[in-house]
Parts: sequence; C-alpha cells; structure tokens
Amino acid sequence: MTVSPYGLHRVLEPAGVLPQQAWRLDADPTPRADEVVLDVRRLNLDAASFRQLREAHGDGVRQAVLDIVARRGKMQNPVTGSGGMLLGTVRAVGPDSPLGLRVGDRVASLVSLTLTPLRITDGLADWDGRTEQVPCRGTAVLFGRSIAAVLPDDLPEELALSVLDVCGAPALTDRVVRGCAQAPAVLVLGGGGKSGSLSLAAARRAGARRLVALVPTDDEAAAVRAAGLADEVVVADARDPVAVARAVGERVEVTVVCVDVPGCEHGAILATADGGTVVFFSMATSFSAAALGAEGLAADVRMLIGNGYVPGHARFALDLLRAEPAVRALFEHRQTHQA
Amino acid sequence: MTVSPYGLHRVLEPAGVLPQQAWRLDADPTPRADEVVLDVRRLNLDAASFRQLREAHGDGVRQAVLDIVARRGKMQNPVTGSGGMLLGTVRAVGPDSPLGLRVGDRVASLVSLTLTPLRITDGLADWDGRTEQVPCRGTAVLFGRSIAAVLPDDLPEELALSVLDVCGAPALTDRVVRGCAQAPAVLVLGGGGKSGSLSLAAARRAGARRLVALVPTDDEAAAVRAAGLADEVVVADARDPVAVARAVGERVEVTVVCVDVPGCEHGAILATADGGTVVFFSMATSFSAAALGAEGLAADVRMLIGNGYVPGHARFALDLLRAEPAVRALFEHRQTHQA
Repeated sequence: MTVSPYGLHRVLEPAGVLPQQAWRLDADPTPRADEVVLDVRRLNLDAASFRQLREAHGDGVRQAVLDIVARRGKMQNPVTGSGGMLLGTVRAVGPDSPLGLRVGDRVASLVSLTLTPLRITDGLADWDGRTEQVPCRGTAVLFGRSIAAVLPDDLPEELALSVLDVCGAPALTDRVVRGCAQAPAVLVLGGGGKSGSLSLAAARRAGARRLVALVPTDDEAAAVRAAGLADEVVVADARDPVAVARAVGERVEVTVVCVDVPGCEHGAILATADGGTVVFFSMATSFSAAALGAEGLAADVRMLIGNGYVPGHARFALDLLRAEPAVRALFEHRQTHQA
Repeated sequence: MTVSPYGLHRVLEPAGVLPQQAWRLDADPTPRADEVVLDVRRLNLDAASFRQLREAHGDGVRQAVLDIVARRGKMQNPVTGSGGMLLGTVRAVGPDSPLGLRVGDRVASLVSLTLTPLRITDGLADWDGRTEQVPCRGTAVLFGRSIAAVLPDDLPEELALSVLDVCGAPALTDRVVRGCAQAPAVLVLGGGGKSGSLSLAAARRAGARRLVALVPTDDEAAAVRAAGLADEVVVADARDPVAVARAVGERVEVTVVCVDVPGCEHGAILATADGGTVVFFSMATSFSAAALGAEGLAADVRMLIGNGYVPGHARFALDLLRAEPAVRALFEHRQTHQA
C-alpha cells in the first residue's frame, strides 16, 4: 500500500477507514517514508477518558490502559471514544517527512492518541494510576499530516504538555470572541480547569466586555477569584441548567464549555442569548443533547464543536501561559493537587 | 410547583432537570396555565431512531414504541437519544399560553418528541411499523416556550409534516451560505433525502457558486439529477472518508451533513477546505468523532451542531417546497417509496 499522509497504510481493521475510526492500527516502530517515530516518555490521557477508566476499573486502570493499547495499537477509550496526547523524543525521521523534526527533538504530539500508532514497552510500571499524566516507555508514530510541537526550553515539560493538551480551546475562544460584532459577554463553564482558565485568559485578551467563570465548588471559586481571571466567579453545578441560568443572570453572547462531565449542554444553551454562540470543548458533550436541547428551548444560538486544531494554537497557548502568571499558577496547582 | 415556560413542572424524574433530560414526564392531558394540549394524529419518528428501533425489534417495533412512551411519558429512544415530532389538533388552550393557537387548529409541533409529554391511547393499531410516520391517537402537551406551526391548507398534511420535521436544515444552510464572504462551493452529503434536498435548494437560492450532491446509490443519483437540484451529483458511501474526498474532488467551502447513519464525520471534514464550515444535521453525528477527526486531520474547519431551531424556519421550508417542484416531487416520491 502506498504511504498516506493521513496514515491509511497503518490501518489493520477495518480496512479502508481513517486511523481514528479504525479498531486496530499497526504500531510497528519502523518509519515509512513520510513518518516520524518517537520514543514515548509520557501519555496525557483525555480527562473524560481517564475519569471513565478510573471509575470503571479503580486500581485496575493501569491494566485497562495496557489492554486497550495491546488490542488496538493505539490508546482510544472504547467507551468515551477519546484518547489524549503524548510527549516523547524523536527517534527516527523518514526521508519525506514534512514535519521539520530532527532526531533528538523533544516533542509533544498534538494529534489525538485515538489515531496515533502506539506500543507500550514498560508495562506502565512507573504510573500509579491516580493521574491522567502517565509516565510511559514505548514508541509512537506520526504521519505526514500530523502535528507535533517542539517543547519549549523555558517551561517544565509536564507543564508544557498539560498546556498543549488543551491548546485548541484558547485559540478558538480567541477567534470566536474577536469574531463578534461587539465586545461580548463571555461565560466559561469550568473556568477553573485547564482549558477553562486558558479560555478565560484568551477571552480577556480578545476584548470580552464581561467575563464570567462558573465553577463547581467554593474552593475553586476562591482560586479563580484570587487569580483575577474573571470579572465574576459563580458557583453552580454545570449539569443543572436551571442553576446555571440563575447563577449567570443576564445571558451572555459567548459560552465556552470546558467541563468534562456529561450533561452540560442545556445549561450552556440557557445561559446564552439569542444570536449568541456556544463553543463545546468537552469531549463529554452529546451531539443530540445539544441539537435537540437548543430546538426544545427555542434557542437561536450557534453551536460549535470545539475543533482541537487551530493554526498556531500551540504557540498561542504557551504564550498565554507565559504572559499570565495567574494561569500558570492554576496549572501548577493542578499538577500538585491532581484530582 | 409554579408553571415553567420550559416545562420543568412536567418532570417526574429525576427532579429539577429540563424535560429533554428527564427520564420520565407527567403526560396528564390537563393544560396548566400557559400550556396547550393537542389531540395527536400522527408521530414522525426521527430517522435515526426509527432505524435503530426497526433493526433492534423488527416487527416488534410497534410494541417497542408503546413501551417507551408508557415508561417515559414521551417518545425518546433510549439508544439514540432522539425523538421526532408530531401532528395534531388543538384540544385545549391554557389562559396564559403565548403560542397564539386556538382550539381546532391543525398544528405540527416543532419541538422534539424528546421533551413533549405524550400519551398514546390507540395502541398504535393503525401503524404497520414499516415507516417512520406513525398514525397515532393520543394526547400531547406544548409548553409556553414550545414552537408549533399551524398546518398550511394548500399542502397535504403528511407532506407538510415531513417538511416541518427537517425545517431547521434549510434555514441554517441559508444562513451559513449567505454568511460566507464569497459565494461558496457547497457539498450536501445525503442530497437525495428530505433535509438534503431542502438544503440543496436553500443553498442554490442563497447563492452557492458550485453545488455538489453526494448520494449512496445510482438510483438516488438519477433522481437528484433529474430534479436538477445540484450542479454535480456523485455516488459514494458517506461513511468512507477516502471515497468521499475522491468523489468530491476540489474541496468545498461549506459541507452540509444530512446522512442519518453514523460515521460520516471524517468524510465531511476531508471534503471541506481549510477555513470552511461543516454543518452536522444528522442525529447520528458523534461529537468526539468530529472534534478528534478535525484535529487528527489538522483540518482548520468550523464545525456547527445543526440547531433544529432558526427563527422563521417553518415558513422558510414550506415556501421552498412550494417554489421548487423538484423538491416537492422528491418528497412525494419518498412518501410512496418509503425505505
């Protein structure tokens, strides 16, 4: 089979689908002409995936991840459909690779684990199963049209990985806020989390008129208030539409959903004014709940599926972190107090 | 409990959620102050829901629908999460109803069955279980913020219902095409179906530069060609991204997904140029497949969740049908040759 920039040649079954749709990939660590092979050092599981695995398997979560990767040749949670991303060092570069990487570069893969051929060789012996950041030895493959960011020298690598994992959110938030005819009021559901805090910072810089962060607990509210990331910080359960609407008060023009639990669609819609936009970044979003919810509420809102790729997203997110000590502090706090 | 325009007072379990999220609604046909009660005459099941029920239950599909409605007080398929809509006659109007309906009006409910309190009283005796249009006697409830269209006198009611069921698609397609900076090339996946043919007609009137219909079979291609709804009609399996991209050729600026089967996300993304827009109307769309697919393909496309509500959508769709005999012919053909 000819080599495909989308990795079609790595698909073992079913034949002819793209790698993300495939049940099983060929994870052989020999680079084809336009591929790059990495020595993996760390996986960062998607938050929704990690939560599901942890709840389903408890302390057996390590074996559950090993089983998935052994069976599928990639880390794609069969229940949530989501993956995460990884960090590694370039081990080999095919002669036709367009990614501009060199052997020895420390990189983060910015395409999902759901389509990345992956082999684990250390049994995840160094992972305690309690955080979504997974120390890991093994190999991974990047395709011609993959995206990888060389890790910055000025930031700890765990911190950089953690930022890059959600770098699509602030970039798209920036684009949506700047695209509004007038400076909008912006609500971020889950404003204390990784994508949430970066989205708040991005919305502020893009000129949001009023910035509301909604968080689940008083502790998180205190942290976001102390960081000064929002004009208003409100506490409510994002899954409770009535509570969300009451907490937010006057409806906003842009709502950004960064809460990694199911059931946040209706609250986001209720909190958004007619003519406004909801951006769903959470992988726990239900398409039908959003579509039918807006219809059922007679809500004329534009609803965007949060695309993890926006050109320049990696640099944008890292620059935000560098420029906003409060965001960096929240990230570092999360790393040391991981839920 | 006070009466809520969103129907919160009709939710039996779990308490405090919106009707669409509820497991069970109170379907008592006594109108509260701002409600309208209908005598139901026909249900139109969502295509994805009907397909799933038919495949899972075969000829037992009638009992399956009865069981769902008896258990839940609404017709919401527990697997697909989707419902459909209904047609009926106004039986009673609460004194505070804002909908402007009168007893005896023939109406279609434009909010989903997933949030509409419903009671079936005839055991669906007149339904043969072979089409998604279900003759039905019973009662349904509309809330203060529901949407209902009075049926036009100049169109057969089955035809009108069939159009109203998908009227969000042409209205949003119109808005997206008109919102493009330059007249766009537009691709409609499933261009021979109900929402697809209306979306083609809407895109044409909104000024599409090039109009491509993708359909699954040569027969359907012949029908769409004969109708003159598109500049190009191509045959491919919408679930096969590689085949879709090859069939469409030069990538388009706007792709509208109207295929009611899972797995069409990646083909839609691959066929859309960077900077373009994909509108997902199919209830079979997977949020994570779309989000991760775009990321994995490094595709800078805007992805919209097809909102079933756009102001004026009912009149817009009915006017399209009246103005486009070819669309009407496709609808009537579908009714007599229902898959």
